[in-house]
Formats: sequence, structure tokens, C-alpha cells
Amino acid sequence: MSPTPPAPSAAEATRARIADVAERLFRSMGYQKTAVADIARELGMSPANVYRFFPSKSAINEAIADRLLTALHASLRAIAGRPGSAEARILAVFEQLFETARQQFFDERRIYDMVTAAISEHWDVVERHIERLRTLVEALVQEGMAAGEFAPGDAAAAAIAFKHATVAWHHPVVVAECLKVGETPEQMRAELRLTLGYLIAGLKRGVR
Amino acid sequence: MSPTPPAPSAAEATRARIADVAERLFRSMGYQKTAVADIARELGMSPANVYRFFPSKSAINEAIADRLLTALHASLRAIAGRPGSAEARILAVFEQLFETARQQFFDERRIYDMVTAAISEHWDVVERHIERLRTLVEALVQEGMAAGEFAPGDAAAAAIAFKHATVAWHHPVVVAECLKVGETPEQMRAELRLTLGYLIAGLKRGVR
Repeated sequence: MSPTPPAPSAAEATRARIADVAERLFRSMGYQKTAVADIARELGMSPANVYRFFPSKSAINEAIADRLLTALHASLRAIAGRPGSAEARILAVFEQLFETARQQFFDERRIYDMVTAAISEHWDVVERHIERLRTLVEALVQEGMAAGEFAPGDAAAAAIAFKHATVAWHHPVVVAECLKVGETPEQMRAELRLTLGYLIAGLKRGVR
Repeated sequence: MSPTPPAPSAAEATRARIADVAERLFRSMGYQKTAVADIARELGMSPANVYRFFPSKSAINEAIADRLLTALHASLRAIAGRPGSAEARILAVFEQLFETARQQFFDERRIYDMVTAAISEHWDVVERHIERLRTLVEALVQEGMAAGEFAPGDAAAAAIAFKHATVAWHHPVVVAECLKVGETPEQMRAELRLTLGYLIAGLKRGVR
């Protein structure tokens, strides 16, 4: 018989506690400068005990990215499921996405470390998030096409265009940079609406 | 009488030579890791001599950013001045912008150092570039509106929307990231055209 692992729920609670503390340290000290030993000390644990739950600092960062993006996606799904026009729901989805990125903003450089580490080491987590977003937008565009709000067309292509055209409002590094050079969240929100206005007008007219 | 400064043309040539060597070192070693002493050694100069031409490493980076962006703007102006529809020229301007960002790509992390240093220390240089781009796109949109290619509307607002919606293809850090995770330049170019297609359809229909 194999040694008894911690009960799943207790293990999950400990993993969550480790991720909480690590996220706080990554944001305040920077991802590169935080060692597993720092996280362990903050928790009153031994590093060896932390390693029982995560094989590496990178794995802790993966868990942080995954839970942030999973929570974000749940809120986007709730918005997409509301009653109302496809246009209104597309606007609301991207506004929520911006709101989340804006709230994440703490320090550009430190966030950059966490985000680039997640992108280069756990691209699958980020890619899953982007793919869920694309699928959700595609479904909304399709609904709008079916309802006659938008011209008939390629909903999948439109979703790709919307996803790329809104990078300035959902890429954590770009959002942090805009805020840092003095754009206000209100300005950014207004510019997001303006940009979505053109894209949605494009959907109404149709391309090609 | 004040001490004789170097003749303007000779001084300019030396400044350009310093910027050339510094740019090469920033790209290969990283901006943070390159010291003025490294640049001086590479040039066979004393650091004191380099400081006669630039007061700091940051000032060298400013000169590099400024000449890159000035050259870029000249090429965009040439494209905007060509014959042809406003639509075709808007597409060509943003394709050139992407092409330039793509060619700049060397290593995400090293470029990030140069770019964020330029953004935080010389935001005026970057802002001037963004403002010139916005003005150029506004003029093209206005031409298109005057020619009946686009619906009448607010050309200035449209230029802001185009500028923001194309960040994924002209922000050096985002472009580098996309290429790093395996998007090909061809894919990125196709997605740029797709996105501009929706924005231009929006211009043709008009907003509000």
C-alpha cells in the first residue's frame, strides 16, 4: 500500500493557502525575487512541506494564473448568459475583462515577471483562457447574427478580430503601462467602448 | 568665450556612431546589463568621451528610440501619400507598422528592458510617435470620408480606435510575445487584415 496522502479537501485548502501567500509575495517583491523559502517562512512551514504540495515556484505561479483566469471566465460566462442584445453583452464582456485587468494592476515590472513567467512556462493555461474567451465571443456573435442584429458572416473570424483588437484593454502588461503613463481608467473605458463601437458597426455591415 | 564644441556635423556623426553601438549592445546584452563603459570600450573611446556626447545611458536610449520612430514615421508618411483609396492606404500603414515591430524582434526580455526604459524615462518621444501616427490615420480617414468611401463621422475618434485596436501588431513587447509563443508573421498579418476589415466596415457604416 502507498503512503496515505493528505485528505483531498485538506490538501486543496493548503494548496490554496500557499497560492494566496505566494501571490501576495509575487506582487509585492516580484516573482523573480521571491523564493519558495520566502513563501514557506511566511506560512510558518518548512520549504520541504511546500514542495509536498507544489513541485516548484513555477507550479505555484501556474496555480495562481489558473485560478485567476478560471474565476474571470466564470464572470464572463455569467455576463454572456444575461438577457439583452448580443451587442450589449459583447460590450459588457470586454468591459469586465478590462475591469479585471485594471484591478490586477499593481506594479508594471512585478506583474510583468509573473505574467511572462506564466506565458513562457504555462502557455497552455493562458491559451486555454484565450480560447475560452474566443469561444464565448463567437457564440455571442452567432446569436447576434441569428437574431438579425449583425449581418450574416463568419462568427469565428469576427471573434478572432475582437480578441486581438482589445489587447490594449486585457493584456495585463499593456493595461499597466497605459495606467502608468497617466491614462485614467475612465478614459480607457471610453476608448474601449469607442473601439468596440467600430467593430460592432463592422459586424452590422458585414465584411466582404 | 566658451570652449569650442565639436563641429556640428562631426558631433552628429559621433552621436550616431555611439547610438549604433549602444543599440547593438542593448539588443544583445540587454539594456539593464549594458554600462556606458561597455559602449565606450566597444568604440575604443573613454567613458568620459562618451559622456561629452550623451549625459547618460538613458539619453543614448532616448536617441535610439527617437531615430527608430522618426525613420518609421517617414516610411508611414510615404505610404499615406501614395495614390489609391483611403482604405488601401490605411491597411498599408498598419502593415508597415507591424512589419517594423516584427523586424525589431530579437529577444522579448531584452527588448522589454529598452522599451520600458524608453517609455518610463522618455515618454515624450513615444507619445510624439503615437500622436504622429494618430494624426496620419485621422487625415486618411478624413480623406476617405470626403471621397465617400466612409460614412461621415468623427475622424479623430476613428483614428483613436484604430490606434488602440492595433496595439497587438505595433507594441514591440506584445508582438515579441506573439511571435515567441509560435504565431507566424503570416498568421499575424492575416489577423491584422481581418481586424482592420471589421474596423473599416465600421467606418463605411458609421457609428451612432
